Amino acid sequence: MTDFFKGIPQIRFEGAESDNEFVFRHYNPDEMLAGKRMEDHLRFAVAYWHSFAWPGGDPFGGQTFERPWFGDSMALARMKADVAFEMFDILQAPFFCFHDADVRPEGADFAENTRNLEEIVDYIGTKMEGSKTRLLWGTANLFSNRRFMSGAATNPDPEVFAWSAATVKTCMDATQRLGGENYVLWGGREGYETLLNTDLARESEQMGRFLSMVVDYKHKIGFKGAILIEPKPQEPSKHQYDYDVATVYGFLKRFGLENEVKVNIEQGHAILAGHSFEHEIALAASLGIFGSIDMNRNDYQSGWDTDQFPDSVPEMARAYYEILRAGGYTTGGTNFDAKIRRQSLDPEDLILAHVGAMDVCARALKAAAALLEDGGLEANRQARYAGWDTPENRALLSSDLASIEARVRAEGINPQPRSGRQERLENLWNRFV
Amino acid sequence: MTDFFKGIPQIRFEGAESDNEFVFRHYNPDEMLAGKRMEDHLRFAVAYWHSFAWPGGDPFGGQTFERPWFGDSMALARMKADVAFEMFDILQAPFFCFHDADVRPEGADFAENTRNLEEIVDYIGTKMEGSKTRLLWGTANLFSNRRFMSGAATNPDPEVFAWSAATVKTCMDATQRLGGENYVLWGGREGYETLLNTDLARESEQMGRFLSMVVDYKHKIGFKGAILIEPKPQEPSKHQYDYDVATVYGFLKRFGLENEVKVNIEQGHAILAGHSFEHEIALAASLGIFGSIDMNRNDYQSGWDTDQFPDSVPEMARAYYEILRAGGYTTGGTNFDAKIRRQSLDPEDLILAHVGAMDVCARALKAAAALLEDGGLEANRQARYAGWDTPENRALLSSDLASIEARVRAEGINPQPRSGRQERLENLWNRFV
Amino acid sequence: MTDFFKGIPQIRFEGAESDNEFVFRHYNPDEMLAGKRMEDHLRFAVAYWHSFAWPGGDPFGGQTFERPWFGDSMALARMKADVAFEMFDILQAPFFCFHDADVRPEGADFAENTRNLEEIVDYIGTKMEGSKTRLLWGTANLFSNRRFMSGAATNPDPEVFAWSAATVKTCMDATQRLGGENYVLWGGREGYETLLNTDLARESEQMGRFLSMVVDYKHKIGFKGAILIEPKPQEPSKHQYDYDVATVYGFLKRFGLENEVKVNIEQGHAILAGHSFEHEIALAASLGIFGSIDMNRNDYQSGWDTDQFPDSVPEMARAYYEILRAGGYTTGGTNFDAKIRRQSLDPEDLILAHVGAMDVCARALKAAAALLEDGGLEANRQARYAGWDTPENRALLSSDLASIEARVRAEGINPQPRSGRQERLENLWNRFV
Amino acid sequence: MTDFFKGIPQIRFEGAESDNEFVFRHYNPDEMLAGKRMEDHLRFAVAYWHSFAWPGGDPFGGQTFERPWFGDSMALARMKADVAFEMFDILQAPFFCFHDADVRPEGADFAENTRNLEEIVDYIGTKMEGSKTRLLWGTANLFSNRRFMSGAATNPDPEVFAWSAATVKTCMDATQRLGGENYVLWGGREGYETLLNTDLARESEQMGRFLSMVVDYKHKIGFKGAILIEPKPQEPSKHQYDYDVATVYGFLKRFGLENEVKVNIEQGHAILAGHSFEHEIALAASLGIFGSIDMNRNDYQSGWDTDQFPDSVPEMARAYYEILRAGGYTTGGTNFDAKIRRQSLDPEDLILAHVGAMDVCARALKAAAALLEDGGLEANRQARYAGWDTPENRALLSSDLASIEARVRAEGINPQPRSGRQERLENLWNRFV
Ligand SMILES: [Co+2]
Ligand SMILES: [Co+2]
Ligand SMILES: [Co+2]
Ligand SMILES: [Co+2]
Ligand SMILES: [Co+2]
Ligand SMILES: [Co+2]
Ligand SMILES: [Co+2]
Ligand SMILES: [Co+2]
Repeated sequence: MTDFFKGIPQIRFEGAESDNEFVFRHYNPDEMLAGKRMEDHLRFAVAYWHSFAWPGGDPFGGQTFERPWFGDSMALARMKADVAFEMFDILQAPFFCFHDADVRPEGADFAENTRNLEEIVDYIGTKMEGSKTRLLWGTANLFSNRRFMSGAATNPDPEVFAWSAATVKTCMDATQRLGGENYVLWGGREGYETLLNTDLARESEQMGRFLSMVVDYKHKIGFKGAILIEPKPQEPSKHQYDYDVATVYGFLKRFGLENEVKVNIEQGHAILAGHSFEHEIALAASLGIFGSIDMNRNDYQSGWDTDQFPDSVPEMARAYYEILRAGGYTTGGTNFDAKIRRQSLDPEDLILAHVGAMDVCARALKAAAALLEDGGLEANRQARYAGWDTPENRALLSSDLASIEARVRAEGINPQPRSGRQERLENLWNRFV
Repeated sequence: MTDFFKGIPQIRFEGAESDNEFVFRHYNPDEMLAGKRMEDHLRFAVAYWHSFAWPGGDPFGGQTFERPWFGDSMALARMKADVAFEMFDILQAPFFCFHDADVRPEGADFAENTRNLEEIVDYIGTKMEGSKTRLLWGTANLFSNRRFMSGAATNPDPEVFAWSAATVKTCMDATQRLGGENYVLWGGREGYETLLNTDLARESEQMGRFLSMVVDYKHKIGFKGAILIEPKPQEPSKHQYDYDVATVYGFLKRFGLENEVKVNIEQGHAILAGHSFEHEIALAASLGIFGSIDMNRNDYQSGWDTDQFPDSVPEMARAYYEILRAGGYTTGGTNFDAKIRRQSLDPEDLILAHVGAMDVCARALKAAAALLEDGGLEANRQARYAGWDTPENRALLSSDLASIEARVRAEGINPQPRSGRQERLENLWNRFV
Repeated sequence: MTDFFKGIPQIRFEGAESDNEFVFRHYNPDEMLAGKRMEDHLRFAVAYWHSFAWPGGDPFGGQTFERPWFGDSMALARMKADVAFEMFDILQAPFFCFHDADVRPEGADFAENTRNLEEIVDYIGTKMEGSKTRLLWGTANLFSNRRFMSGAATNPDPEVFAWSAATVKTCMDATQRLGGENYVLWGGREGYETLLNTDLARESEQMGRFLSMVVDYKHKIGFKGAILIEPKPQEPSKHQYDYDVATVYGFLKRFGLENEVKVNIEQGHAILAGHSFEHEIALAASLGIFGSIDMNRNDYQSGWDTDQFPDSVPEMARAYYEILRAGGYTTGGTNFDAKIRRQSLDPEDLILAHVGAMDVCARALKAAAALLEDGGLEANRQARYAGWDTPENRALLSSDLASIEARVRAEGINPQPRSGRQERLENLWNRFV
Repeated sequence: MTDFFKGIPQIRFEGAESDNEFVFRHYNPDEMLAGKRMEDHLRFAVAYWHSFAWPGGDPFGGQTFERPWFGDSMALARMKADVAFEMFDILQAPFFCFHDADVRPEGADFAENTRNLEEIVDYIGTKMEGSKTRLLWGTANLFSNRRFMSGAATNPDPEVFAWSAATVKTCMDATQRLGGENYVLWGGREGYETLLNTDLARESEQMGRFLSMVVDYKHKIGFKGAILIEPKPQEPSKHQYDYDVATVYGFLKRFGLENEVKVNIEQGHAILAGHSFEHEIALAASLGIFGSIDMNRNDYQSGWDTDQFPDSVPEMARAYYEILRAGGYTTGGTNFDAKIRRQSLDPEDLILAHVGAMDVCARALKAAAALLEDGGLEANRQARYAGWDTPENRALLSSDLASIEARVRAEGINPQPRSGRQERLENLWNRFV
């Protein structure tokens, strides 16, 4: 038991009227809605990296956080895990997520990295035995170390490809060892800084092969979870290959992996790609590749990945509405890939950022569920496309241009526009949100 | 013979040192480079819409251009065609492009639209007999009329789907009648304003079927040209389905059309999607779907489609370098989808905007060709990936994670980064541009 | 009495639980909060242009709205006014705003424009006698007509300067005649398309003189309202001189007008300039030039002025919080410079868009007032700066570098950072919003 | 003499046709144009921070550069200075620029910082005696250390204000000691992360006082150089107070400092603020506050400060054209606030990035000078405003609205638009660039 969070109580639901800062006002894990416990809908996860491994730096300044576990030894890595599980316990978090580099010190070579990882994974496994918190997903950090500066799977140097493949193997092993429900790949360095030195065709071939091997290994070891790609358009690279959901879909189709791999959609990455978060979720659902979400928020007016905690109920409600419409999560969940601001120095900031975000998500989920149950929005959507329900019109989709032209002429078809009713639907939305 | 361009001479090549405003300084059609005449490399096309149909309006102001052919009669449509061919002749343009709505007045119904189109197409056909200018591509305007406000192929109203299909048939017929080398689809209204009233799955199914019918009709009538989709991320719609090249690729793969349809890439649309123009070209080439380009420029700092004439030789050189690397155009060309600013009121502005743009493209092409011939950039690219040339390393791509991990351990692989040399390559670039 | 809104009832407050679409759920004009009636806090105005003069066009499509009053005659202008006042009555709108070009047909010359304006202003004056709706502000449209394509006050042609000055005179006269509480200037064409043909120094001198004359004329005619500039960074121009609040402040200081002119801040324009709406309000308040707001919303991901109706309570609450902190409006108000989407064809859409927006603003105002009354946010703000309250520290501001350096050395000052508590404040915010 | 640049020759001018990578192709210091040596026009400076203090990190990865001088001792600081002057010598750089934190190790307290600074400044002074390289400007790094996380002059904690003031004093002393021609302030942390905890009025008052003290101290110590503010809109802060040139101008006017302080304009910061670089230069010149430039380039499509070396001759030409129009630099210069990409690991990359950028600037300067000498652009600009040259029209600027209206009526003024000729001017531009 560390004393990092000394004096901070376990967070419990007290309702919206509570005056207490250290309570949930809206997140009530056992409350039933739409046929499930709220906890089982939301499946919150804490991200190890932002909360425990990030020192508070930004491009113009260094470390602001002074954490007793910062450093490179295994002892400190265990202290970090202790604090992490204390936070999971305070928040009663159902899940967490991690990269290898978050939990273990960097070693001198691959073998040491692996030993470090295995040792700390054992330690974490022991901690999980005394905790309600399970593993939503594991992943490999293939972007921070300088060896990855020109890519991991897409590196011009085959040795980096090999190192990366070997590392992913160890991380998949670790994920399975800890009962993870998913394995995630985020290709932060899979992209380029300049086309002048880049061979797009070669790099995408490398990436396709790499992913195929990941899928094969999943089957080989009998991993039951989902393989997820996390799209992001740029940063750190000038251009990243997993730009957005539509791009990842095309990539999966190209390599025949569309039934094997799904997406982990991050709010901030959706924004950077020029999409709304709900667009990316709805698109993934329509393509059958929706997996999980990284819940955070990006500043719309800062062109980098701010990874802030979400604070807007209406925006989050859009996301949960699409998730509920798609049937909710299967293996996925709501991972807070979010970091407190570098000025938020106190342990309380770390706890309360999560508490506030969990409440925002809970409010959003409740609003979305109520609107879906109301049915008004879906009824309007159906009515708008109702013209397609006649056999004659449905047949248009299996006709041909010449036949359709003949029909337009014969029937004197001359379509008249009908109101899209956007503002009325926004008003309906605002009755629930 | 109209007198709109009275006093403006045919533009001829005079070289960089000329003092004459009405000459080409760099575009010399018969000059050979990289084994072809410059004209045959560049395959310039004039866009009918911007030059002859656009009145000069913007969202805060109306018409600024006062053209004698503005109006809705067939007589004025013929005058417009007369002026257009006079401009083609002044520029010695090898190609032009048009939408149905550019060349014919809007009729009261589908039948009248078609009659108007057929009549003016005959007229244009006659004019082409006396002209060197051929048709690069035709297309249907499925976005300006209010009937398309909620989409064409993706409209919730099946009658609009039918109207659109019938219209595309007539436009494909017109394109074939005029010997067009391609047929283009730009889905300006294929997208949505708000997800609240939109069914993504249904609309993409409609769009997939629509495109399949277009491909079928091409084969039915024996059209030899290419079918091209022009990606654009948004504007006029909040979100458009043909977002960018990667998105279109995924869509084609989904409907099994990746060998039937290519892309027409516009500089401004690439920019709006967050990509460089050369990225989109290089990506399309690597995926085997590069078709043609709409050459213009967008203001990087104005978030809408400014469709200006290109003025930057270095930027255009990046584009032509990728086109040359991909082997050059087959059916495609360089279409100036560009409009003079609404303050550029004079006939001279219209001519000289094209002259300047053609010169910019010619300089860019020459620089790109010289750099490609020099070989320095390609040699560096190859050297960067040379590690993959050994059988052992090539084998990594057909290996598996566990075997690779074993090799990393066995060989103690510990990759060291090598310089990407970006600035040196930029210097090399600037020797030629 | 027209029949445009036939069957639409006057909108009345029924409370959040009502099932009726045509009611206010949150806007309750007579409800008291923070010492004033809600109506007197919010001071809603309807914008004549978007609701009655805009045909529904966008850069890729023309008119979608078919309104019986569209056209160029005085009779139609009167019908438009009739419908407008019917809408004001349905909404019980306390205010409206207009440009000259919204209310009168364009004449052949200045004299006819003025006659048309005077006649319709008389007609509107008569209508106001039977209405509760007053004039929040009037303004001159110095951007739509082609004569303004290169600027109004900043035009290279002095005749346009003269025309613009004369027009503003007639619009100020009209505003005073109708009891307007403010006069607004938005310089849509005061800016440039290209620096290549622009003389910044000359144009800003013209603009400064123009504004000084407006202020002089206000005093000459005894107009009691405020003169307001509405900042916008670009669109329609590439660059506009009234870029944002800070830019306007510098301009006012330069011409000695900072005590004579205030700002009308539009949400969408703030966004386009890279600022949050609340930033612009807070900044203007801190500089003593806060006047009024144009309430709408811009799509953060569309780089043009979408002028949508606001739909986000949390965002609007940020704005009203700053307005309340600044003491609320004096002459200003909440003008809906917002337009229904071009697919929203029905009269009901026009009414309900306003109803929804008024409710959003009312919820936002109530949340902001409650948080301000709670005092928690302000107490935290004060505590954060409390170190400055000692005489010794206050004296730093009137010291000099050498003395301060001596003190730092003498006292061994070595400041330690303290948490900024951003997430905790966001949580506090979300208790109220 | 270190061996870091071993084998790299001093760079000499060889002309465009040279095959040698390590030469200037266009930068020929002694070449005369527009009445001055090229070196005296361009006044290039190397930035100490990017080249010698930056480890190559980005938000997703750490150090990539392995430099023998990295570390925290005075001995390493001296080695860093040795290498820096070796690079200055290789490049024959006329100037350099530095922050205190670039050149000295961070000490335990203010006294140690100052001792370290003084010692290394002495060392640098000695090195300058054997070098042609002079100091363009010095500055204080008031943003990297965690003590500045909430601001320097604008910190809520008066002790940070005091620390910052004392530090600026020492940096001004150092700048004067080394014969610096300017002193720069960049307020990276002068701004806010969230309005929720910020008092704008108080912070701007602090900032105004701080700057006034800087000006007073300049006069006190008889520093002959210029005081420069470097605007930037955001990053690292969400909002920064010195947003752009117009904002800084308003701030200077507010505190009566517009004749004491000028601006140092950075290309990348102009871009982030939504402006072109040439706009910011032209605006500053028109307001009488143009000082110096930080020459780099930002990626238009990456929303953060990429600080790349410039590579576009046409873009740089726009900048130098405005600088030449404004009469050229007085105390200012062209500082390369640019960093090699983190993948550019080699010493050669560091040298050649500067060489390429110097050549790009030289080409741009020559093009701009030729165009200015040609006079065509300026003649067109004058002709466009020539209507203002008559006494009658000039009098409009000292008239009043009522008189102007009378004149418009009396003369039947009805202005007709004239072409702005943008494309023709772009063509003219491209004859020279
Ligand atoms: Co993420
Ligand atoms: Co992120
Ligand atoms: Co196009
Ligand atoms: Co375009
Ligand atoms: Co407005
Ligand atoms: Co607006
Ligand atoms: Co800088
Ligand atoms: Co910068």
